[in-house]
Amino acid sequence: MRTLTILGSTGSIGTQTLDVVRSNPARYRVGYLTTNRRGQLLAEQIREFSPTGVVAFDPVVAQQLRAEFGSQLEVLEGEEGACTVASRPEVDIVVSALVGFAGVGPTIAAIQQGKRIALANKETLVAAGELITRLLKQHNAELIPVDSEHSAIYQCLVGESSAEIEQLILTASGGPFRELPADQFQHITPAQALRHPNWSMGPKITIDSATLMNKGLEVMEARWLFDVPPENIDVVVHPQSIIHSMVQFVDGSVKAQLGLPDMRLPIQYALGWPQRIPNEYQRMDLPLIGSLAFAQPDFQRFPCLGLAFDALRRGGTAPAILNAANEIAVAQFLDGQLRFTDIPRCIERALERAEIVDSPSLTDILTADARTRADVRRENASTK
Amino acid sequence: MRTLTILGSTGSIGTQTLDVVRSNPARYRVGYLTTNRRGQLLAEQIREFSPTGVVAFDPVVAQQLRAEFGSQLEVLEGEEGACTVASRPEVDIVVSALVGFAGVGPTIAAIQQGKRIALANKETLVAAGELITRLLKQHNAELIPVDSEHSAIYQCLVGESSAEIEQLILTASGGPFRELPADQFQHITPAQALRHPNWSMGPKITIDSATLMNKGLEVMEARWLFDVPPENIDVVVHPQSIIHSMVQFVDGSVKAQLGLPDMRLPIQYALGWPQRIPNEYQRMDLPLIGSLAFAQPDFQRFPCLGLAFDALRRGGTAPAILNAANEIAVAQFLDGQLRFTDIPRCIERALERAEIVDSPSLTDILTADARTRADVRRENASTK
Repeated sequence: MRTLTILGSTGSIGTQTLDVVRSNPARYRVGYLTTNRRGQLLAEQIREFSPTGVVAFDPVVAQQLRAEFGSQLEVLEGEEGACTVASRPEVDIVVSALVGFAGVGPTIAAIQQGKRIALANKETLVAAGELITRLLKQHNAELIPVDSEHSAIYQCLVGESSAEIEQLILTASGGPFRELPADQFQHITPAQALRHPNWSMGPKITIDSATLMNKGLEVMEARWLFDVPPENIDVVVHPQSIIHSMVQFVDGSVKAQLGLPDMRLPIQYALGWPQRIPNEYQRMDLPLIGSLAFAQPDFQRFPCLGLAFDALRRGGTAPAILNAANEIAVAQFLDGQLRFTDIPRCIERALERAEIVDSPSLTDILTADARTRADVRRENASTK
Repeated sequence: MRTLTILGSTGSIGTQTLDVVRSNPARYRVGYLTTNRRGQLLAEQIREFSPTGVVAFDPVVAQQLRAEFGSQLEVLEGEEGACTVASRPEVDIVVSALVGFAGVGPTIAAIQQGKRIALANKETLVAAGELITRLLKQHNAELIPVDSEHSAIYQCLVGESSAEIEQLILTASGGPFRELPADQFQHITPAQALRHPNWSMGPKITIDSATLMNKGLEVMEARWLFDVPPENIDVVVHPQSIIHSMVQFVDGSVKAQLGLPDMRLPIQYALGWPQRIPNEYQRMDLPLIGSLAFAQPDFQRFPCLGLAFDALRRGGTAPAILNAANEIAVAQFLDGQLRFTDIPRCIERALERAEIVDSPSLTDILTADARTRADVRRENASTK
């Protein structure tokens, strides 16, 4: 029986993690849950899973939860609360499923206690990959990816020598605008961009999938998770999202992991590794699917992907700057303040303007992040 | 530096194995080579690779080789000679690439000396799977498959627990008659059947690919190699032969091994395992390939596949009988004595007629094999 802290239990990955816990009551119990401000859903989760404690990032929501549940369980608030419940000694596994840069601090807290981290928060490795890699070794913590692509690569590498990796091949669905002509991109609305063809995910990551920035962030994650330089990471468009990613080895042999698009699979894998947990989920049927298609990604129509490769090659705080600029630009696009095509422009300007710090400390990263957010907000406010 | 005996060095797998040796002179040296009757090609191989000894199954060919090379190296003959060179103490790896049932004896000889066997001879496991499995354990020998399908499964299982296998999924190109209407099958000529769309192989295995018996034999091999019962082995038609096979685990996750159709890859893998040997062979390019197709196999037009599953489920000497009947029927089809559609009929009759012995000894298997061959020859002679 292993005890979980689920950072972000009311989000898409969080609720699917609870679905896995629900199906495996003899394997997992819920220690702690956190939400940003979805108090009502968290209250339902409290009633079903009886955690030891919960956290709301929003103090008002925390206050409401305290009023209802304060006598039964601990109710903490803010990032500090999230760090606390990520570090508790009885916790075995921390599912890091916060959205955006907010996930970095609590994930580091969990690493410092030598936990297993089931990592769904991309920004941790994107912004602080070098630092996180160092901390993982230092504290003997385990980082198992939850992203379907990285879980696929992780599975392909089981029993293989990392020295024999020739290329990582990340597959990309191509998003909803895979076949949209270039001149239509400026007219894309948030509602159109939120309709992902294969995966049901939160709004930030869905927009990132539509710009292919999501794939760019995944390239960065892969670079740190598997210690592979950017020139040995490829992206291939695969609209069906059946092959979740691949590894090519030095002998030319390629291994792939496949399955129906269902995030519970990689969540399960990250919780159970090295054991696979049996389930009754629907099985993939390739004859029924009929065929799998592949194409090169189009760096012209999707400039975010190239920007991500550039920032990764530049290193230092460049990925943190790209990530911060992207978070603000995506939020502003969703709010109707920016056009879809402004997202990459905004990131490019942020990278050009910023001073990039090499081998950054956590403070350097936090500073780069905060400064970029402020700069992008200021600039976009002034150009309105 | 590891020393090889290549049983069947003048065949398709044998010459490709020598190509791997040629590219890796620091890793492998040739100890012994064998041929059935291709003395001239063996003579060339002797000049290039300077083996310690050679074997010709045909005594006339052995005599000719002795005349030319007798002063430089040992020249043996027959199956006894093959068993001898498979057992020599300085040999580390025996590549078992003889065609048909003739491969069983020398492969067993290598197992009894605890060698690594790179197994390309299907019949060893088809006819004597239970026995071979027992001998492997007893003599602590290693059996690494060379068939691209089984090599794929072997690679997918590295680092995984065999208790977590849910299904093995063997891919089949479908052969040259994948789309031929049922009523055309009786008119198929040997020349048509010898044109395989993806792989360049010897004639016996090429005909087996056209009838799908090859896939049936592979199902049998897989059953013993990976200790998976027939009901957990599936066949999927995949005309491009890019995905070489797959494993589905108990959590629904599927792993696949992919690559261009090039037998040197699985040969290399079997020789080098657990190490992968770097090479400059052409790499797979999925965007260039464009798409991969999948379909259910048609058991009506390809009855050999169903016969193989039936024989495997029946067990005992049934697979040996099926294999012997198939070898004779294929030879007679190639000689123009049988029609393509007579091959499964001939096998079916052989299985109906025979007495099947359970948990057979090697003698039982040899007897079943010899009796079936004689019966099929007699019957087909009498019906002409």
